[in-house]
Amino acid sequence: MIVSALLTSVGINLALCILFFTLYSVLRKQHGNIEVYAPRLVAEGKARRSGSEFNIEDLLPSPGWVRRAWEPSEDDILASSGLDAVVFMRIFTFSLKVFTVAGVIGVFVLVPVNFLGGQLKEIDFSDIPSKSLDFFSISNVKDGSNRLWVHFSAAYLITGVVCYLLYNEFKYISLKRLAHYSASKPQPHQFTILVRGIPTHDGSNISDAVENFFLEYHPSTYLSHVVVLRTDKLRGLIADGDNLYRRLTHLKSRPHSSESSRQGAFLGFFRPNGDLARQYSKKLEALEANLRIEQSDISSRRVEVPAAFVCFKSRYGAATALHIQQSVNPTQWVTEQAPEPQDIYWPFFSTSFMQRWVSKLVVIVASIILTIIFLLPVGLVQGLTNLEQLETMFPFLKGVLEISVVSQVITGYLPSLILQLCLSVVPPIMKLFSTMQGYISLSEIVKSACNKMLLFTIWNGFFANVLVGSISSQLQIFSDPKNIPTKLAVLVPAQASFFIAYVVTSWTSLSSGLTCLFALIGNFIRRHCLKCLDDEFHPPSIPYHSEIPRILLFGLLGLTYFILAPLILPFILVFLCIGYIIYRNQLLNVYMPKYETGGRFWPIVHNSTIFSLILMQAVAFGIFGLKKLPLASSLILPLPALTLLFNDYCRKRFLPIFHAFPAETLIKRDRIDQNDPTFNEFLDGVANAYRDPALMPINRSLNRHERNSPLLSHADA
Amino acid sequence: MIVSALLTSVGINLALCILFFTLYSVLRKQHGNIEVYAPRLVAEGKARRSGSEFNIEDLLPSPGWVRRAWEPSEDDILASSGLDAVVFMRIFTFSLKVFTVAGVIGVFVLVPVNFLGGQLKEIDFSDIPSKSLDFFSISNVKDGSNRLWVHFSAAYLITGVVCYLLYNEFKYISLKRLAHYSASKPQPHQFTILVRGIPTHDGSNISDAVENFFLEYHPSTYLSHVVVLRTDKLRGLIADGDNLYRRLTHLKSRPHSSESSRQGAFLGFFRPNGDLARQYSKKLEALEANLRIEQSDISSRRVEVPAAFVCFKSRYGAATALHIQQSVNPTQWVTEQAPEPQDIYWPFFSTSFMQRWVSKLVVIVASIILTIIFLLPVGLVQGLTNLEQLETMFPFLKGVLEISVVSQVITGYLPSLILQLCLSVVPPIMKLFSTMQGYISLSEIVKSACNKMLLFTIWNGFFANVLVGSISSQLQIFSDPKNIPTKLAVLVPAQASFFIAYVVTSWTSLSSGLTCLFALIGNFIRRHCLKCLDDEFHPPSIPYHSEIPRILLFGLLGLTYFILAPLILPFILVFLCIGYIIYRNQLLNVYMPKYETGGRFWPIVHNSTIFSLILMQAVAFGIFGLKKLPLASSLILPLPALTLLFNDYCRKRFLPIFHAFPAETLIKRDRIDQNDPTFNEFLDGVANAYRDPALMPINRSLNRHERNSPLLSHADA
Repeated sequence: MIVSALLTSVGINLALCILFFTLYSVLRKQHGNIEVYAPRLVAEGKARRSGSEFNIEDLLPSPGWVRRAWEPSEDDILASSGLDAVVFMRIFTFSLKVFTVAGVIGVFVLVPVNFLGGQLKEIDFSDIPSKSLDFFSISNVKDGSNRLWVHFSAAYLITGVVCYLLYNEFKYISLKRLAHYSASKPQPHQFTILVRGIPTHDGSNISDAVENFFLEYHPSTYLSHVVVLRTDKLRGLIADGDNLYRRLTHLKSRPHSSESSRQGAFLGFFRPNGDLARQYSKKLEALEANLRIEQSDISSRRVEVPAAFVCFKSRYGAATALHIQQSVNPTQWVTEQAPEPQDIYWPFFSTSFMQRWVSKLVVIVASIILTIIFLLPVGLVQGLTNLEQLETMFPFLKGVLEISVVSQVITGYLPSLILQLCLSVVPPIMKLFSTMQGYISLSEIVKSACNKMLLFTIWNGFFANVLVGSISSQLQIFSDPKNIPTKLAVLVPAQASFFIAYVVTSWTSLSSGLTCLFALIGNFIRRHCLKCLDDEFHPPSIPYHSEIPRILLFGLLGLTYFILAPLILPFILVFLCIGYIIYRNQLLNVYMPKYETGGRFWPIVHNSTIFSLILMQAVAFGIFGLKKLPLASSLILPLPALTLLFNDYCRKRFLPIFHAFPAETLIKRDRIDQNDPTFNEFLDGVANAYRDPALMPINRSLNRHERNSPLLSHADA
Repeated sequence: MIVSALLTSVGINLALCILFFTLYSVLRKQHGNIEVYAPRLVAEGKARRSGSEFNIEDLLPSPGWVRRAWEPSEDDILASSGLDAVVFMRIFTFSLKVFTVAGVIGVFVLVPVNFLGGQLKEIDFSDIPSKSLDFFSISNVKDGSNRLWVHFSAAYLITGVVCYLLYNEFKYISLKRLAHYSASKPQPHQFTILVRGIPTHDGSNISDAVENFFLEYHPSTYLSHVVVLRTDKLRGLIADGDNLYRRLTHLKSRPHSSESSRQGAFLGFFRPNGDLARQYSKKLEALEANLRIEQSDISSRRVEVPAAFVCFKSRYGAATALHIQQSVNPTQWVTEQAPEPQDIYWPFFSTSFMQRWVSKLVVIVASIILTIIFLLPVGLVQGLTNLEQLETMFPFLKGVLEISVVSQVITGYLPSLILQLCLSVVPPIMKLFSTMQGYISLSEIVKSACNKMLLFTIWNGFFANVLVGSISSQLQIFSDPKNIPTKLAVLVPAQASFFIAYVVTSWTSLSSGLTCLFALIGNFIRRHCLKCLDDEFHPPSIPYHSEIPRILLFGLLGLTYFILAPLILPFILVFLCIGYIIYRNQLLNVYMPKYETGGRFWPIVHNSTIFSLILMQAVAFGIFGLKKLPLASSLILPLPALTLLFNDYCRKRFLPIFHAFPAETLIKRDRIDQNDPTFNEFLDGVANAYRDPALMPINRSLNRHERNSPLLSHADA
């Protein structure tokens, strides 16, 4: 890729970014869109769905939202979105710190050194736009040149800086995690463990077995328990009921919603049908009667799953039962930390052990297949980057491709766009896979999906592109472990310009996320065509499993290309700045936290960064060898050893805090609780928090009205 | 190798075995040798060192010892040598069960099928002695022959049998472990944990810090503690003192030992030297005074190491503190299970963290270097096996080598002997390495050495021989993971006859171990030349780190060659039978247990057996491919998957029991203790058990007299 193609891409993407920002700042002021752009505020009752009269200012773009997103402090975010959101934002600040240092070194030291290298051609300042980007990369430094020692020092320097920042960040977040726990009010999951593999002897039921066991071995701390019941049939009935109820209210609400019919009268020929409504009502009544019978049936027959939530009188009591193997048979009385009540993924409990085991196997196979299938779009993308190949394959395109703008768009913009689009399809699939895998909480599902996505992204986003991209290469590079660094040193730099273009394209994909186009269109259709206003309304939670791997991929790219093609760094910095503002805005307005893991996503970030460092060092090792500076190549070897040692230390020093809370913290917190007069009241309610929602009495109308009160109060007015 | 060479080797080894057995049965009756052949009985006072008058029966070999070794039940061994010895003997019974089944299938089904295969030559019953052993191996089965399905079924059958036996054995041993714990008297290490990384704030000492911490967070269960002191200087002084004392008693004892001087008067010109004795006495007195000063100095100045043994009032209390992370900083207050007091390796505590870290690194590098260096003897051994090579390298040997007996000895016996000798040098080195690595207990050191030796044995005893043996092969086989099974299928069968010879040779090395030749000679020199009878006398403990890997290597060989060359199986069975009797005898008479791990060596055996199965299946996969029966090759693939699944289940089901005892067992045992009137007395003594022996008051003469009373009472008489 030449400089002008890069500039074309930058131009297109900057324009699109500005377009999206403008669009957003206008669209968000339209009151009809408030559900799309501030669903969180609506749910919290801080914003009303329907607003005041029309205002000309609402049509003018304004940057006020940027200021509002910038202003809140970390403590504000902690208070409003929890520690996970803080950790998520710290990925940005951490990356910004790293790439500011790297960018300064890269642009002001490495780029000039590279440009004056003179390996590819004589040094020549004329006609820079038509120069290949390779002139700014390490390829342009002469073989065996002493200037490579600059790159060598840069590798050591950046490793030191990243490790220092990683250490500080890990320390900061683990302290935050402990402080957050100490400062939190007593919560049911802090006093509860989940026990699985409960053995029953013939005649006795599970509830009695749990009671007997814990009264026997934990008499002083055991509080109560809730046995998990098999409610998959119930959940089916409830879903059917919900569905019917939605249709019914949809039918009924139309004549009343005067405002919406005024707005969308052109589609008003969908008149409410009295017969249909009556039919639905009847059906719903029958279904609910059935449901009640089933509920009482389950409660009385007690279709128990051999699992129970066991509550304790103190946090330390729960921790004791959690960490010590309970039974002489380690497959019985298996304990694990209970998730927060709202975080539990109930359907999982109804599946049998065999089902879980099979689905786990299926998921692994499916993930591998998905990863392999994804090589197809990657191949297509790389085909576009190598235009000559395309021309030979489709000769009729030759005329079109010779137009310079077209060819620049095709090489500079299109491939990255396709890759971005394809990559955006994967996170929901990975989440589905993780759901099938048998985690008992949403947060674990998202964490597992996040790990899967990270592997997928690093493999397909980075390695597949590197390996498929260079025509000469095959996947067999990994069959000869000794030569991996050398081969990577050949392949990785060859893809520098592709990845620069990719980073630039991701600006657009980030800012297009801001406008939530799909949600906007969906909302429009719902409001104006279907006119269902009282539809179920949940603000979304932040999809960590798609966002974290995306950001980490840029970290990987930035660190890997830091030495090879430092020109990528400013573009990554721009990406991070845009991301910082956008995600802060979304956290405050759009995403509602559904669970709190207490920052347990950070170790993923840490590991990924360490991997990036090692990869950077391996490539540096290879490139110094290729550039005929074997001394530098050998002197780089202590660097990965030191990095791994540092990682080892961090794992020992900080990781245990992310797995469990220490006795010191728990006991201190327990003592505070005991002096709290409301604590006994809290303990009485702990077990209730873990009742299966499917067994709760159904009170649809009341339920709905309460939840959507701001909306209905208006609609009924 | 041809059949007659094998028979030569069998002949030599059988003769040697019988010789050693006879020698042993005569030598053990000589009263002078009782220290060598029954040191355990001497130490326990069950046998006296010097015996009655000369008896002609003592010179006749008799098989009585075999009966005596056979008779004791497992419970007897448990009572006399502990659970580790039981587990060790169960390796033999387990292997015997496996190879009885394998042997029956192999000899009565596979060998006939192989012999009638007709791939190498027409079937021919004449002149069997000069036939190559290959006629009895799978190489002789025609390519693509349906007879290979017999081998295929055998692979499935033996995997099933081994897994069934493994499961039973793991279950049996884990139940034994739990029962042994429940039945054991209260012991200090059950109530104690080792705490490391104790932080001190300026001014306070470690002892106070420990006291404060555990009184704060474990007030109801904390009992007391012993801070570890830095005693490396003291230990040096004590060693010097011991040395001096030994020389002194040596000098003094001579005039008194009338009997020994009668026996060994020919060397009696070493007369005790009064001056020397006085000089030694003086030196010793000075040294002991110095030692006492140093001891009181250390106790008063408290040169503390930031580690302490913390004792609790109950087992469950100790387990609670052990399993829950104590401090908000996971590198502080690190808890681990305390070893038994006599099992502690004290010198380790005096080394600094940096020393430990460096020595760990050094050990890893040294182990790798040792493994590489060991390829030299392996190469030599394999050179001998391939006589043609030797002839071309040393033409002058040609005449000698053409004598058939010589060539049979050289190919059939010598290589295995050399390998056996070289292998026997390694265990002490590996133990030394493990000692440097920083384990705090002897049992951990031996366990780690056992693992190292197992890796070393499998690599150098098996893979190196397989790879070096076949001239065409190179180590690069591992660089192409996909083809490993195929390559192994070529290389492994080629070494069948070498390994058969190796198994046969090991009979001799086993039975030579019985006669303890080195100890015998040492004892002879000591008694007759140096005349020091009252030398320090410790019965040895069983060297698990050298014996377990040795037996496991035969398990590996047996399973791997089960399909390829079933002729190896009867020889392995003989090995196991000899080993069973010999080790039972040694356990009862020679080895004295120094520690009790409660059967924690079994998981090593389990893992090794699973590895052997997988290797067998990989080779089977390759061989069916080579033999042009691709269907069998693909149908073997589920087998490793099932084996790994089985292994996974066993790890979940049994392994946790080997890491820690469950709450159920601990609490039940605690309740029994509480009803025991002597329990409080026991608790008072717990902390004392963990005092550093270097700080104990020295009372040499008394000390010695008590320990060696049977000896001295005689010598003084």
